[in-house]
Amino acid sequence: MNWCSPTMNLYPKFSFHQTYKSPSSKARIGQLVTPHGNVDTPAFIFCGTKATVKGVFPSQLRAAGTQIILSNTYHLMLQPGSHTVKQNGGLQKWTGWNGPMFTDSGGFQIFSLGHGSVAAEVKGQRNTQRPKTLLKIHEDGATFKSYLDGKVHKLTPESSIQVQKDLGADLIVVLDECTPFHVDKTYTASSLHRTHRWGKRSLQAFQDTSDESQALYGIIQGGIYEDLRKIGADFVNDQPFFAHAVGGSLGKNKSQMQDVVSYTMSLLDPSRPVHLLGIGGVEDIFHGVRQGIDTFDCVHPTRIARHGCALVNSDYLQYDSSHRKDHINLRNARFVHDTHPIDDQCPCETCHTLTRGYIHHLLKAHELLAMNALTLHNITFMNRLLNDVRDGIRSETLNTVEQRWVISRA
Amino acid sequence: MNWCSPTMNLYPKFSFHQTYKSPSSKARIGQLVTPHGNVDTPAFIFCGTKATVKGVFPSQLRAAGTQIILSNTYHLMLQPGSHTVKQNGGLQKWTGWNGPMFTDSGGFQIFSLGHGSVAAEVKGQRNTQRPKTLLKIHEDGATFKSYLDGKVHKLTPESSIQVQKDLGADLIVVLDECTPFHVDKTYTASSLHRTHRWGKRSLQAFQDTSDESQALYGIIQGGIYEDLRKIGADFVNDQPFFAHAVGGSLGKNKSQMQDVVSYTMSLLDPSRPVHLLGIGGVEDIFHGVRQGIDTFDCVHPTRIARHGCALVNSDYLQYDSSHRKDHINLRNARFVHDTHPIDDQCPCETCHTLTRGYIHHLLKAHELLAMNALTLHNITFMNRLLNDVRDGIRSETLNTVEQRWVISRA
Repeated sequence: MNWCSPTMNLYPKFSFHQTYKSPSSKARIGQLVTPHGNVDTPAFIFCGTKATVKGVFPSQLRAAGTQIILSNTYHLMLQPGSHTVKQNGGLQKWTGWNGPMFTDSGGFQIFSLGHGSVAAEVKGQRNTQRPKTLLKIHEDGATFKSYLDGKVHKLTPESSIQVQKDLGADLIVVLDECTPFHVDKTYTASSLHRTHRWGKRSLQAFQDTSDESQALYGIIQGGIYEDLRKIGADFVNDQPFFAHAVGGSLGKNKSQMQDVVSYTMSLLDPSRPVHLLGIGGVEDIFHGVRQGIDTFDCVHPTRIARHGCALVNSDYLQYDSSHRKDHINLRNARFVHDTHPIDDQCPCETCHTLTRGYIHHLLKAHELLAMNALTLHNITFMNRLLNDVRDGIRSETLNTVEQRWVISRA
Repeated sequence: MNWCSPTMNLYPKFSFHQTYKSPSSKARIGQLVTPHGNVDTPAFIFCGTKATVKGVFPSQLRAAGTQIILSNTYHLMLQPGSHTVKQNGGLQKWTGWNGPMFTDSGGFQIFSLGHGSVAAEVKGQRNTQRPKTLLKIHEDGATFKSYLDGKVHKLTPESSIQVQKDLGADLIVVLDECTPFHVDKTYTASSLHRTHRWGKRSLQAFQDTSDESQALYGIIQGGIYEDLRKIGADFVNDQPFFAHAVGGSLGKNKSQMQDVVSYTMSLLDPSRPVHLLGIGGVEDIFHGVRQGIDTFDCVHPTRIARHGCALVNSDYLQYDSSHRKDHINLRNARFVHDTHPIDDQCPCETCHTLTRGYIHHLLKAHELLAMNALTLHNITFMNRLLNDVRDGIRSETLNTVEQRWVISRA
């Protein structure tokens, strides 16, 4: 057993405890210790953008095996404002979740998103026009218009830390510029160095105000360029961050993303936990854990639930051997008379009590319960997946686990 | 103890067991026995219009103390169609509820509602233009256009029974014409007699096809006219219905509604259970149970939840002694920093884990969880209310119970 608390002075209430390291890959099993509870890693962090995982009670999250959720600084600083969250006792108490939480810096939404999918953006699938709400990036920070009322706001490394301190999540992140995929290397390099200056300012602001209740993640940028990723990795390794997050554009396709992640992971201090920002597809998770990624986040499981889709693993092929996606769309007419649960191996409330046919009806009738039921199933699916991934690492059967959970696209 | 199974031959699997009769009013405590379980009366029947109480899992309904729910024949015959429900095992199995259920005849929506509130209509508060979707009322039945696709459908006493048989609820209702408040006495009388002819046809269709799994309610119409209500009551008393439902326009205000209900109840066979259709305000329930009403239904608790409102009783006056409504609207800005639960005496998940301030945020941010949380609270509120009503009847303390649950409008 290897207890790692590399920066004991800054983070006395946090630790990352690696309990098993695979001899066959960089995969490891661990436990993130935070003031609001522990997180078994590798873990999936669910997105509760506006301080709620849409449609689900905290007790339902817990019952589904969830240990940690993420909220977005950008959304909460605009509504209801971080002061309001602070006055109501901080995120964990305010939401009734009372467990480990993670906030991002707010930068991702400001720099990269007008509207659209986080995952698509970092995977290079979106057009990369700067959002119209971004007014200016300058050395001090960035000015942008609120998506709610057009009011102009400014976010700096220091204000991002202050806002995240008010929100009170256990795990918080430095402000960085998330460079789009299509910008050139010169811009990416220049942005990377500014991100590092911002990283130092974030750390300073963090140290100046820390009450030891939070731990700070540094971010590695550098786009698809190996030499820049090396500079990014060296920077974070040298700074007293609690943990690291791999961010930014990861390439134009899954293969390039895997290359960037693998290369970046080869450079990072292995004693610190590593989060892969905005990535969490089932295939991506198997690749990521083999590179040593400890935590993932992605809106995909909860977002597709609200569009009528349930995640399935290869157990589903018994019903349709030609199926080639990670999900089924229950709006499809073929489910009208289907009296099976989504997955008879799934222990969630949805699979225990509702059939595909009934969920199909709920979707066609625009009924709220459809979204709740599918969200709960997809959350349970991801937690079961990560549980099996941990078991697979521990017993060196990760390939077998992968065969069950990944439906081949071929 | 008084076991009543007045029409043993038609309803061998059903009974209405009156366990206590108040010496001071017509209030009684009982148990409705159905093939899917028992219902303690007086009871509130929650509206699951399209075969779902919006946003709530069956397990959450049960945990909140719910024993019976109602679905609407009109909505389900149009979507997904009663054949689909039948093929999927019937309402109780299809929905995963597996408990007692009630369906109406479909007539109410066809005759009285374009869009709008059931409660407002029967209380005479709506304009009473016939809905544009109603094409014709004739001796055989009624033709109407689907609200979904404009397709023309016909509903007759026989087809309503057939549709309700396919849906499979335990308690079903004869087709009647629900006359609007503003029609004259001549029309009301003529409609009443047609409703009786339809009632006999419904009974015949029911008897011809019964497999003993359902019990049939007769309906008393007659509008606000005592002599017509008398004719309506005599009719149902004479027919082998399992139970009675008081329907139709109940007047232009609460006082007139109470008069119509009191008068009608004085005429009905006291051995049969009585349902008050579409009425279930907190005050109405106290008046109704004193007249001998056994079950109520109303969309109010679940509908106002989806508009941001939580039901409260007079315990709430400790926070705002000037409050004069049966609910609080959590969209109101005064709740931003409110760290109290809606009701600290309420055992629901919402009151146990979420504060008024957080629910306010969820509403302002258009978050799904707000609707789920408020629906669950309002369901729990109604079940607690009816539980206290039963206790109050049994212990002759109904006036004290009423003081706690009804917030005076004065």
